[in-house]
Amino acid sequence: MSVFTVVTDTALRDWLRQYELQLVSFEGIAAGVTNTNYFVDTTHGRFVLTLFETLKLDEVPFYLELMSHLARHGVACPAPLLDRQDRLASMLCDRPACLVSCLHGRDIDAPSSVQCCAVGDMLATQHRAAATFKLTMDNPRGPGWWAQTAKVLYPLMTDAEAALLRDEIRFQAQYRTSQLPRGVIHADLFKDNVLMAGDAIAGFIDFYYACNDVLIYDVAIALNDWARLPDGSIDAELARAFLQGYQAVRPFDAAEIEAWPTMLRAAALRFWVSRLLDLHHPMAGALTYTKDPGTFRALLVEHRARSDFWL
Amino acid sequence: MSVFTVVTDTALRDWLRQYELQLVSFEGIAAGVTNTNYFVDTTHGRFVLTLFETLKLDEVPFYLELMSHLARHGVACPAPLLDRQDRLASMLCDRPACLVSCLHGRDIDAPSSVQCCAVGDMLATQHRAAATFKLTMDNPRGPGWWAQTAKVLYPLMTDAEAALLRDEIRFQAQYRTSQLPRGVIHADLFKDNVLMAGDAIAGFIDFYYACNDVLIYDVAIALNDWARLPDGSIDAELARAFLQGYQAVRPFDAAEIEAWPTMLRAAALRFWVSRLLDLHHPMAGALTYTKDPGTFRALLVEHRARSDFWL
Repeated sequence: MSVFTVVTDTALRDWLRQYELQLVSFEGIAAGVTNTNYFVDTTHGRFVLTLFETLKLDEVPFYLELMSHLARHGVACPAPLLDRQDRLASMLCDRPACLVSCLHGRDIDAPSSVQCCAVGDMLATQHRAAATFKLTMDNPRGPGWWAQTAKVLYPLMTDAEAALLRDEIRFQAQYRTSQLPRGVIHADLFKDNVLMAGDAIAGFIDFYYACNDVLIYDVAIALNDWARLPDGSIDAELARAFLQGYQAVRPFDAAEIEAWPTMLRAAALRFWVSRLLDLHHPMAGALTYTKDPGTFRALLVEHRARSDFWL
Repeated sequence: MSVFTVVTDTALRDWLRQYELQLVSFEGIAAGVTNTNYFVDTTHGRFVLTLFETLKLDEVPFYLELMSHLARHGVACPAPLLDRQDRLASMLCDRPACLVSCLHGRDIDAPSSVQCCAVGDMLATQHRAAATFKLTMDNPRGPGWWAQTAKVLYPLMTDAEAALLRDEIRFQAQYRTSQLPRGVIHADLFKDNVLMAGDAIAGFIDFYYACNDVLIYDVAIALNDWARLPDGSIDAELARAFLQGYQAVRPFDAAEIEAWPTMLRAAALRFWVSRLLDLHHPMAGALTYTKDPGTFRALLVEHRARSDFWL
């Protein structure tokens, strides 16, 4: 359940006037853990309404301008609508709210190699298309964040786990990334954030962790989910397909090839830490939705012992 | 046949690199009388390629920025793609060329009242959405143009027809339009420039006559085609449905109600004159495509004698 804010018919009808849209019907969308989403049917078709539960009105332009920029460059993602006053968001039920185009397609649990290849290709396309995007956003979940967060977590962990976490954070802190190409990354391109229509990408969604960071770190985050089998291990064929798709559009340079194993570990670390935090300090209202941190601890251990990185 | 410019596979493949797109296949589109259009299938889906046969590269931004603006405001129309350098158009085969999103739907010959209502609604939405559009374009087919063009035509017409044309041009010249709301108009919203998906508008297309002019003149141009029966007369039910759809979004003000009969005549006049010109001075390459000017002469006569204007 993730409709945190209940919108009334009257409030929505009034708000939609700013878009020249007449409401036909609307219904809450169950997926999503941070924001409230509705399907909104109008006389001009279906849109998705998002109410931002944590972001302030002056914090949303980065994300909405980014989606708009990407959509206009042919990256498959929702295109935000401009209202009569050329705004991408305004207040609804005391929250910043926006309307975006509704994509067809659905998320998938068990992708094929062809689908992994298509996601890699589109991610590289996103990275290239964002090169002309002007706004920037620091990564709020970077090395500074995980080091700080770990301090809260150590006392709650077994000695062995704390030692692993401490060691990985130390390892990552020693690693310099200044030689790596940076840009705007999605930072959360898990399987549930991609809508597929068969083997084609209907769209990447949920850009609300997007930020400026190392491009191949984004590849590592996505691959860690897309190529991961139900038993937690990475499937070499899916991993190779993902990287093949990505590199067909944007090949890794020499520095990226060298840094790749480290970035895979960093991406596993980041989600191990955030899931540990969710487990021990769940957000208000998110009680029903805690994912197992063990998945990413196991993946980190696997990456640390790995010798073939599918390049 | 309207593929005036033949694009080679190699040239297209190269040009698409600017959009991060990989060509799968392409085929010419037969419809259209001014520009060359192709369907282009890529690994990221289908787009429409337009090569401008008469416009120069510095003349296309108005039209493409307009379509982009309208699409971003939820008006159903093709959305132009930005390339890697954030350009909406660049040269291909010595012509300005652009890529736009491919709409589903098809044009229809015999619209229902419901469809006329939907077109009127979307036209009003377009007029309102264009209110924040910054670029402007004079109407190249306005009163100055038809008065000049008529001088070439009079010697080629019968005395009775020339007298009618002369009288209507004089009548329109005496009519002041400065009191009427103006804005960006489509100026050519005939049935073949609207793609329908059932009763819904898939999109308005072919914005290459768009310009700044009187808004209800645009309504008159569209209604003169959408509500016209095969025998050339206007169907009152279709006309009322069109106006009802339009006025549900943007009601006529008092000045517009008064000017409406005159605008219907002006819209008939404009296409009578351009069709006469096409008949007597066909454009090079457009030999197979001359439409009957008599349709709009008859419509003008009908409007001049009309007493009920469906408002």
